[in-house]
Amino acid sequence: MTDRAPTGDGPLAIICGGGSLPFTVADAAQRRGRRVVLFALHGSADAARVAAYKHHWVSITQVGRFFRLARTETCRDLVMIGGVVRPPIRNLWMDATTVLLMPRIIRLLRGGDDHLLSGMMAILEENGFRLIGAHQIAPEILVPEGVVAGRMPTERERTDISRGLALLRATGPFDVGQAVVVAYNYVIAVEAAEGTDAMLARVADLRRSGKIPTPTGVGVLVKAPKQGQDRRVDLPSIGPKTIEGAARAGLAGIAVVAGSAIVAEADRIAAVADRAKVFVVGVAAHEPGR
Amino acid sequence: MTDRAPTGDGPLAIICGGGSLPFTVADAAQRRGRRVVLFALHGSADAARVAAYKHHWVSITQVGRFFRLARTETCRDLVMIGGVVRPPIRNLWMDATTVLLMPRIIRLLRGGDDHLLSGMMAILEENGFRLIGAHQIAPEILVPEGVVAGRMPTERERTDISRGLALLRATGPFDVGQAVVVAYNYVIAVEAAEGTDAMLARVADLRRSGKIPTPTGVGVLVKAPKQGQDRRVDLPSIGPKTIEGAARAGLAGIAVVAGSAIVAEADRIAAVADRAKVFVVGVAAHEPGR
Repeated sequence: MTDRAPTGDGPLAIICGGGSLPFTVADAAQRRGRRVVLFALHGSADAARVAAYKHHWVSITQVGRFFRLARTETCRDLVMIGGVVRPPIRNLWMDATTVLLMPRIIRLLRGGDDHLLSGMMAILEENGFRLIGAHQIAPEILVPEGVVAGRMPTERERTDISRGLALLRATGPFDVGQAVVVAYNYVIAVEAAEGTDAMLARVADLRRSGKIPTPTGVGVLVKAPKQGQDRRVDLPSIGPKTIEGAARAGLAGIAVVAGSAIVAEADRIAAVADRAKVFVVGVAAHEPGR
Repeated sequence: MTDRAPTGDGPLAIICGGGSLPFTVADAAQRRGRRVVLFALHGSADAARVAAYKHHWVSITQVGRFFRLARTETCRDLVMIGGVVRPPIRNLWMDATTVLLMPRIIRLLRGGDDHLLSGMMAILEENGFRLIGAHQIAPEILVPEGVVAGRMPTERERTDISRGLALLRATGPFDVGQAVVVAYNYVIAVEAAEGTDAMLARVADLRRSGKIPTPTGVGVLVKAPKQGQDRRVDLPSIGPKTIEGAARAGLAGIAVVAGSAIVAEADRIAAVADRAKVFVVGVAAHEPGR
């Protein structure tokens, strides 16, 4: 076993979380003539779909096993994609490399998300791997500018979108979340550690208890990349779950900065958005108009 | 009945919500030689304590009745203070003046809090009343600079406080909430429509489900006034409930911009903070150090 992974044009390693995105990326790479090896994460990856590709199953607490397998497969380039279910750490057996890395990982966990991700990438790169953004392999997974699903936003909704984008620009330097909810110019929710889905659930609760002055069907979820975020690992994503959460929160739609977010389960987006009566639109980071 | 309330140096009208603050303000006014009339809000004001002052009971849906009584009492100056329980509007009988004002109130409810408050004040002033900040009558209710209860914050906690203040300065122009939670430089929560108590409950939930990387006893609730907020009606307040919420959220303490927030139930603060092991500190709006 060497300290460095083999360099050169080996197969692409795809660390494969939940959802359909990992397979979209794998297919895109193969279409472009690149071989792929999936490293499917226990508890997250879709076993039935993983089986169609060359793959190994790994746990997120088996960093050493992953390094070893990836080197054997002569992988140097690495994509991490798909949702990861965080296991209860104390119940899992860690391999030796993971144990050795734990003090460093714990230190990283004390910083914000940006800090954690850049630290994890440093660990990968010290071990000879090169992290690549999924969208560099498969640009078609990015949100395009314009209507992605449902109707066009109204003038008033565009004003809410602009206000949300301006607020996210203001909070960007603080490594806060990547989403806000704005309704008739009123900021209803700002995401931080809870994540977008939990924030939407909160808006639904606030609405049920009568704490949101605007009527149901008013308001937009606005998502943007954080300033200075590493786009290789931390692109926000939207998918059917986001759309259903926005509908339960009584919102009119979802606006995402074009080119800076990933569409999860793109094949289902249009149908889910139509059923939920929620629009999904890609916008420029600086919307004109206010 | 005249359209204008009598001018001149009549008694001070105190619209009296829940908690002990209204009585602190009433006592302070009386100590300074000003007569007071309490307008106690049904469902919010403490009946036993109200009885010790000249008073009338009113409902928040009886604006006309309030105008009439206040004019009869020759009150022109008006203080609104104490927590208000929002009644389910549909169950309450509105008097004629309230019904006439409703379309305007509903329009105000569509804007942010700032908009609502400034609109309500305009209604009061058009009817000949003058709104005064409770702290102008009783400056002793404001948070002073320095330790209010518990121990001094550590150097690391001061860094979290500075970061929280900087974030609140950035979000100020957006009429968002007035509080954030920061732990080891990581922004855990940002308040918007849910209010401070609900935000602290969320942090407690996130901690229980293991989504907060920092240990219990780390992190500070930081509260500041919004930029351009009208200090006569919208000063943030902290009290025993805030301290208990911070303790349940596993935080080390609470930092409030000195002179810009009210201490609720000041007589209980020290004991509650000691029991909860939570510090409460008044800080300058621009903390040096980062």
